[in-house]
Amino acid sequence: MYRSHTCGELRIEHVGQNVTLSGWIQKSRALGGMTFIDLRDRYGITQLAFSEEDNKALLDDARKLGREYVIQIKGEVIERASKNDQLPTGEIEVKVTELNVLNAAQTPPFTIEDETDGGEELRMKYRYLDLRRNPLKNNMMLRHQMGIETRKYLDQQGFLEIETPFLIKSTPEGARDFIVPSRMHEGEFYALPQSPQTFKQLLMVSGYDRYFQIVRCFRDEDLRADRQPEFTQIDCEMSFVERDDILAVFEGMVKHLYKEVKGIDLPDFPRMQYDDAMRLYGSDKPDIRFGMQFNELNDLAKDQGFKVFDQAELVVGICAPGCASYSRKDIDKLTDWMKRPQIGAKGLVWVKYNEDGTIKSAVDKFYSQEVLQSWLDRFEAKPGDLVLVLSGETNATRKQLNELRLEMGNRLELRVKGEYAPLWVVDFPLLEWDEDSQRFHAMHHPFTAPVAEDIELMDTDPGKVKANAYDMVMNGVELGGGSIRIHDKELQQKMFKALGFSDEEAEAQFGFLMNAFEYGAPPHGGIAFGFDRLVSVSAGEESIRDFIAFPKNNAGRDVMIDSPSAVSNEQLDELHINLKSND
Amino acid sequence: MYRSHTCGELRIEHVGQNVTLSGWIQKSRALGGMTFIDLRDRYGITQLAFSEEDNKALLDDARKLGREYVIQIKGEVIERASKNDQLPTGEIEVKVTELNVLNAAQTPPFTIEDETDGGEELRMKYRYLDLRRNPLKNNMMLRHQMGIETRKYLDQQGFLEIETPFLIKSTPEGARDFIVPSRMHEGEFYALPQSPQTFKQLLMVSGYDRYFQIVRCFRDEDLRADRQPEFTQIDCEMSFVERDDILAVFEGMVKHLYKEVKGIDLPDFPRMQYDDAMRLYGSDKPDIRFGMQFNELNDLAKDQGFKVFDQAELVVGICAPGCASYSRKDIDKLTDWMKRPQIGAKGLVWVKYNEDGTIKSAVDKFYSQEVLQSWLDRFEAKPGDLVLVLSGETNATRKQLNELRLEMGNRLELRVKGEYAPLWVVDFPLLEWDEDSQRFHAMHHPFTAPVAEDIELMDTDPGKVKANAYDMVMNGVELGGGSIRIHDKELQQKMFKALGFSDEEAEAQFGFLMNAFEYGAPPHGGIAFGFDRLVSVSAGEESIRDFIAFPKNNAGRDVMIDSPSAVSNEQLDELHINLKSND
Repeated sequence: MYRSHTCGELRIEHVGQNVTLSGWIQKSRALGGMTFIDLRDRYGITQLAFSEEDNKALLDDARKLGREYVIQIKGEVIERASKNDQLPTGEIEVKVTELNVLNAAQTPPFTIEDETDGGEELRMKYRYLDLRRNPLKNNMMLRHQMGIETRKYLDQQGFLEIETPFLIKSTPEGARDFIVPSRMHEGEFYALPQSPQTFKQLLMVSGYDRYFQIVRCFRDEDLRADRQPEFTQIDCEMSFVERDDILAVFEGMVKHLYKEVKGIDLPDFPRMQYDDAMRLYGSDKPDIRFGMQFNELNDLAKDQGFKVFDQAELVVGICAPGCASYSRKDIDKLTDWMKRPQIGAKGLVWVKYNEDGTIKSAVDKFYSQEVLQSWLDRFEAKPGDLVLVLSGETNATRKQLNELRLEMGNRLELRVKGEYAPLWVVDFPLLEWDEDSQRFHAMHHPFTAPVAEDIELMDTDPGKVKANAYDMVMNGVELGGGSIRIHDKELQQKMFKALGFSDEEAEAQFGFLMNAFEYGAPPHGGIAFGFDRLVSVSAGEESIRDFIAFPKNNAGRDVMIDSPSAVSNEQLDELHINLKSND
Repeated sequence: MYRSHTCGELRIEHVGQNVTLSGWIQKSRALGGMTFIDLRDRYGITQLAFSEEDNKALLDDARKLGREYVIQIKGEVIERASKNDQLPTGEIEVKVTELNVLNAAQTPPFTIEDETDGGEELRMKYRYLDLRRNPLKNNMMLRHQMGIETRKYLDQQGFLEIETPFLIKSTPEGARDFIVPSRMHEGEFYALPQSPQTFKQLLMVSGYDRYFQIVRCFRDEDLRADRQPEFTQIDCEMSFVERDDILAVFEGMVKHLYKEVKGIDLPDFPRMQYDDAMRLYGSDKPDIRFGMQFNELNDLAKDQGFKVFDQAELVVGICAPGCASYSRKDIDKLTDWMKRPQIGAKGLVWVKYNEDGTIKSAVDKFYSQEVLQSWLDRFEAKPGDLVLVLSGETNATRKQLNELRLEMGNRLELRVKGEYAPLWVVDFPLLEWDEDSQRFHAMHHPFTAPVAEDIELMDTDPGKVKANAYDMVMNGVELGGGSIRIHDKELQQKMFKALGFSDEEAEAQFGFLMNAFEYGAPPHGGIAFGFDRLVSVSAGEESIRDFIAFPKNNAGRDVMIDSPSAVSNEQLDELHINLKSND
């Protein structure tokens, strides 16, 4: 028996008991004729005491032990002379009578502490050591608990977890597939799923009514920061439902998770039209932990001689509370920040509503005090506030102002960690125009249904049609999204026509699922959540990497195991492929 | 709202209520001025009634509906005139007042009934229709419930589910890997995991103490019947444990599953030495639902002039109770069955213990009645029994007799469906001699620890060393297996030496994990269960295919989606590979 208790378990009531503990040496302190060792395992830390008086040889042995050695000890639980109320086990220590080294350890390349001295690259290489640190351990435990509670909730709601295949078929639409050469079928390939979309819709055709799966998905995309080539999805589909049935079930799921895992009662989720989200926040995933909504100024700012605004499609701004005290230099720096290529604003117009009631602006010479006052009124600005205005093409300007709003939210500490503001964004456009191919693309996918009242528009003005699609947003991050699917053949044909598909093209690309739909497809819809992100956002973090046990770096490489890597020629031969020569 | 109730929900107490139901038409019966439709969904079947008297137009519409149409109806729940006590909803029917066709359906290519008229190939092609049938639906629901209960149990036992990567590194040992060409790293490949073995051992090094994962694994092997290229594993690992700790936890898990999912209390699992399993059953996974153990006859049968036995390494038999009545023809047929190439026996010696106490045998002329009686005594045979004896090289003969024992068990209906006989097989050999390469191979893998008392033998007689490894067996099927791992560097070096590795080879193949072991590896061990098989065996079925929603056929092909398939040259170009030309 390696242990009678874990290192997180002993309390004052265990005093006098003989115990056996096993764990890692977190640290060791020699004090005169004593040595104290903090022994660590997943469950906590227990202090071990060795003294010269009790056993000189044992003390000498203890002093030879290094950090991260794995040891087993036997001893008696005693009350500590000086207690540590930061530690659940802080009232006791174990007076050691026997010591076994289970495994020696080299000195780790960085410290195993909450704040480590190791750099990013080094910690990725020794991920198995980085995972010993509390912040990562807590993330893994949070992730485990979120998975357990997700399944508990969905099971209680009558969902069945059904596993779908990983070795599937490459489809030309969508992102790039990872493919897998077949040894048994020369010249043929499997593909790894970007999502189980087709299979979950088939399961609805099969009558499974409520399906879910927590499942790995794969996309061979150029990696941006915080994107992984493999990621985990909570994938769900329901039959005989309308949009609000789905929103209710999954709002319930996220409330359940926050309640059970974090002890937080989330409010009912407000719903926002996509058009409103774009108009008021310049984003389809607004952070509504704070206000600072956009106000448009076209009627108050144009045709008064300021050419920049006169030529702009949109003049729009936000009001930063209490920022009238910004110096000229502060505003110049903010303007430079906005002009960086990542954001690309041409300039930034400001109006200060000073504490004394006077108004000062960069565009004083074009606008009277009355006009500037009318701008301030639109923002319901108070003395001490700063109004910041951008102008230009509508979509680009909104996007830039969204960045500015988030930045000001950060500066004013309005994006409070530990506060959670969930939101449904609904009524997305069904189609988006693609300038390159001069045709519409499906914003979600070609099986997304239009909202009922827009079906007429499919023939006359397809760009105006709204989709019966929805995203769940939390604190400015998209947690998940989905839609009601088309289950009616005629409507599906209209959709393909709007997308510019010939019948033959539609058949070639989607014939398989279309075929299944001929055998009695129920009305259905679903949603998918990014599980990595769901967990990280609930912990108040935006990066997902430290919520994945063994992530890849930004080049898609696992530096710990050194993958991808070369394989043998024999392997390639068996798979009937060659490396392409570099000529 | 598509429905107020499911098709499995209505009972006599709902009579008088107006309800809305949606579902598929299972069947339709016209009877005079009435039509009855069985409406089906996942939850059950409800009878709908249409009558000429109530609404002629509606009746006419109902008569136009085909099998598997998806419809929605509104109506009133009424008590049935003739009740059906086979159906939970059999006391009521719904008098329909409104009918909406949600989707028409083509006539399915086979009947959606418990016993279908569709052949295997057709049902695979239309898997989404086959999945509508009750037997498959029940399998999927069973699988879901086993997954939920597995996680519940392991969570309660303090295990954390931690996801490990799917895009990993190809390793030369073991079965063939599926590999995935990297677009971003020219000439390099990921591999899909055969199991998360390395990662779960790393998680022990990381201090996670108790890990599990229900996870897809991949093996590119030539497929035998009932093997899938992708399969699901319950993968587990624990730290600071000895063998019996692991057996206790996972015996507990399987007991929990049978109790919660099937309402069955399994007995404590007996433990059997690998050597005994081979000696008594000729198999490392004996079906102990029935006895019919082997008895060896070397001492009673050799050196008495019967050359076949004299030259044999082993003479061994079983006693088939009540089979003395087998005719000469019956025995000839059984002998032919044993001589088929799949089994390969040279012949079959029989001894009949007739009901009248006389003894008759194929080898009468070589053995006296007294000697034959001594054989019967060894089997504790009773009048009416038939003893069947094989001889030859030990391993081959045991294997053949195992087949015969299972066959006789089937014929005598001793392998009772619904009876469950679990078993631990322990103390496997650590190494097996490979004639081809003239060296030892690890029977499990090179990190499996020997049992403590055999460590001495590692240097002197490695072939005799027993592994600290164990398999869980149920009704003759291996459900899972695992081992205590080596965590000590010196012992690991002994192991590599016994396997004939040079230091350089050991480093090249296993350097990565060995390296991690230098930083404080705890004593650890684990187990992995085949989840597909765990579910199928619990349902009393040996084939796993119908417990997987979308399986591949024996050629590794998904005939429903037609995968694997060709991909475009653009895709291959991006991945820096060519198809090998066929010259």
